[in-house]
Amino acid sequence: MINTIVAGEVLKSITRAMVALVSEARFHFMADKLHSRAVDPANVAMVIVNVPKESFEVYNPNGEKTIGVDVNRIFEISKSIRGDEPVEFKLEDDTSLNVKFGSVEYSVALIDPSAIRKEPKIPNLELPAKIVIDAGEFKKAIVASDKISDRVLFKSSENGFSIEAEGDVDRITSFMSEADLIEFNKADARSMFSIEYLKEFIKVASPGDTLTIYLGNNYPVRLVFEVAGGKVGVEYILAPRIEESE
Amino acid sequence: MINTIVAGEVLKSITRAMVALVSEARFHFMADKLHSRAVDPANVAMVIVNVPKESFEVYNPNGEKTIGVDVNRIFEISKSIRGDEPVEFKLEDDTSLNVKFGSVEYSVALIDPSAIRKEPKIPNLELPAKIVIDAGEFKKAIVASDKISDRVLFKSSENGFSIEAEGDVDRITSFMSEADLIEFNKADARSMFSIEYLKEFIKVASPGDTLTIYLGNNYPVRLVFEVAGGKVGVEYILAPRIEESE
Amino acid sequence: MINTIVAGEVLKSITRAMVALVSEARFHFMADKLHSRAVDPANVAMVIVNVPKESFEVYNPNGEKTIGVDVNRIFEISKSIRGDEPVEFKLEDDTSLNVKFGSVEYSVALIDPSAIRKEPKIPNLELPAKIVIDAGEFKKAIVASDKISDRVLFKSSENGFSIEAEGDVDRITSFMSEADLIEFNKADARSMFSIEYLKEFIKVASPGDTLTIYLGNNYPVRLVFEVAGGKVGVEYILAPRIEESE
Repeated sequence: MINTIVAGEVLKSITRAMVALVSEARFHFMADKLHSRAVDPANVAMVIVNVPKESFEVYNPNGEKTIGVDVNRIFEISKSIRGDEPVEFKLEDDTSLNVKFGSVEYSVALIDPSAIRKEPKIPNLELPAKIVIDAGEFKKAIVASDKISDRVLFKSSENGFSIEAEGDVDRITSFMSEADLIEFNKADARSMFSIEYLKEFIKVASPGDTLTIYLGNNYPVRLVFEVAGGKVGVEYILAPRIEESE
Repeated sequence: MINTIVAGEVLKSITRAMVALVSEARFHFMADKLHSRAVDPANVAMVIVNVPKESFEVYNPNGEKTIGVDVNRIFEISKSIRGDEPVEFKLEDDTSLNVKFGSVEYSVALIDPSAIRKEPKIPNLELPAKIVIDAGEFKKAIVASDKISDRVLFKSSENGFSIEAEGDVDRITSFMSEADLIEFNKADARSMFSIEYLKEFIKVASPGDTLTIYLGNNYPVRLVFEVAGGKVGVEYILAPRIEESE
Repeated sequence: MINTIVAGEVLKSITRAMVALVSEARFHFMADKLHSRAVDPANVAMVIVNVPKESFEVYNPNGEKTIGVDVNRIFEISKSIRGDEPVEFKLEDDTSLNVKFGSVEYSVALIDPSAIRKEPKIPNLELPAKIVIDAGEFKKAIVASDKISDRVLFKSSENGFSIEAEGDVDRITSFMSEADLIEFNKADARSMFSIEYLKEFIKVASPGDTLTIYLGNNYPVRLVFEVAGGKVGVEYILAPRIEESE
């Protein structure tokens, strides 16, 4: 059956990414990658995780296979794992998953995939603006915005990209010109989002990780993180909030 | 209008010093320094902050000017600033203050200075004892005392300076002889103070900062801290508590 | 009277060990060691602390002497002491104990030893299995187990030593073969214990400290820690919980 070995940081990133939105998820062991995706109970955000087989030290899915996983439990246990520690993932039968690291063996009952909420289709979004940014800079802007508001405005224009929040009597703007960004297509776009969600999303990333933002006008945003040294792709799609007319 | 640049640690120290007692304050941009002072709502303590213009990288008050500031908000935002990061302070009109660091611009509405509680006169205190001490040592004594009581006795005599606290069944004394102190005039003085206030005051200082204590007999104490590498002067005046007769 | 000097880490270890079970204890200053022991109020566990006189820099009990101590208070104060800081312990009369470190002198009223709960006899236990393990590895296993259950099974057999916990739908096993252990006699034994107690016990130890486990069958376990660089011996005896038949 399934048998894989992967660095601790990869398992930590996968589970951290999913628990931002759900506590249970389907994991698809495909020929070329491990894939999982889910929508949060409020239908406001989607998470898509892809781990190419090259990111594993050993990857033997032994035929495509889908399992239902309590990601919350594995996330809790993964806190005991060091980032550079090899972790063995084993599926001995259809009823339980085995996670082995150091002298510890953790075994958890699988969930019937059909009992887990139906997975979303990944929407086809036309998003004009593309902004590539250090995830650490993005994190700083969200953390600062969170101190004064519960929503932020993402704004892209010829001049640059900005993240803006407005409090009762104050306003905070993080502005990055083309020179401050890794890549930027200068397209016009603006949409407003809940900080509550963004705060959860940024937990998966560290300074030095790359974040690509695809932004439209009053439209969902795609946040594509490359984490765990590029080994794990985590994408969040977040619905916009209505921007009050000014 | 006002335009200044200063290291992050200076802004952090100024706001940290003020929030120990108040959430709003008047800031006076004077020709030679930035000055602010306030009394806490209970009228037990006063804080006086002075930042000489030499502590700024750029200091252009453009004529003396007084503004009303929500120090709590700026303190919160200043937590996102690194100590060595340059921060630009700008006043573009009479209604809002601009704080700029890295890619972040924070703008907050000013408060009408006349709406802020009237500032105290700085009292003229005759305080016989002068004790100069490492702020870190002072902090340790306050933290230890806090474990057993809510008040401490400061005592100066020919022998040295001591900070004493008394619990129900225990007592803690931090005693420093002349050799343990940076400067000491050996004058006799003793007064008792609330640890609740002292605990707030010491947050502004780090080990290595200098603290000068001016102490009298059942009289207010002056605690004069030099913080942020000597760039910021923070003075607290704290009313004594009545010492029960022994 | 009693006069001793000891490194801060020794005092911290002694008090940390005792507060896991009680807030007051008798300390026996014997000719060759400092000894203390106590049972928790629920009669589930016993702690035994021994500090040989060689672990002290100065040890003058001046005749055997027993004092009653509020270990909780001394534990709180000992948090302010650095591990390598010398601490002076002095008993000037029968009413108060003096603890001196740096410029701080802490004095606490003694408790009449007869007012403290009678000390337990150390039971004579026949425990077949002996497992010597790095305390850090033991700690990791307990912390991980605590995430899914409130009790653990210790199991020793020819194959090795394991710590097992079982949740509603998951199970965690830390298994160490003879090669992973410092010493191991391969005897058969198994007993189940409360994680609540074990969690308190492990706070006294650091990675690198040695732990010797003496295990029987549905019988109390002896956990013998060598802490503070081997200067302090801490032993816990913990009653088993009934293992449900499988």
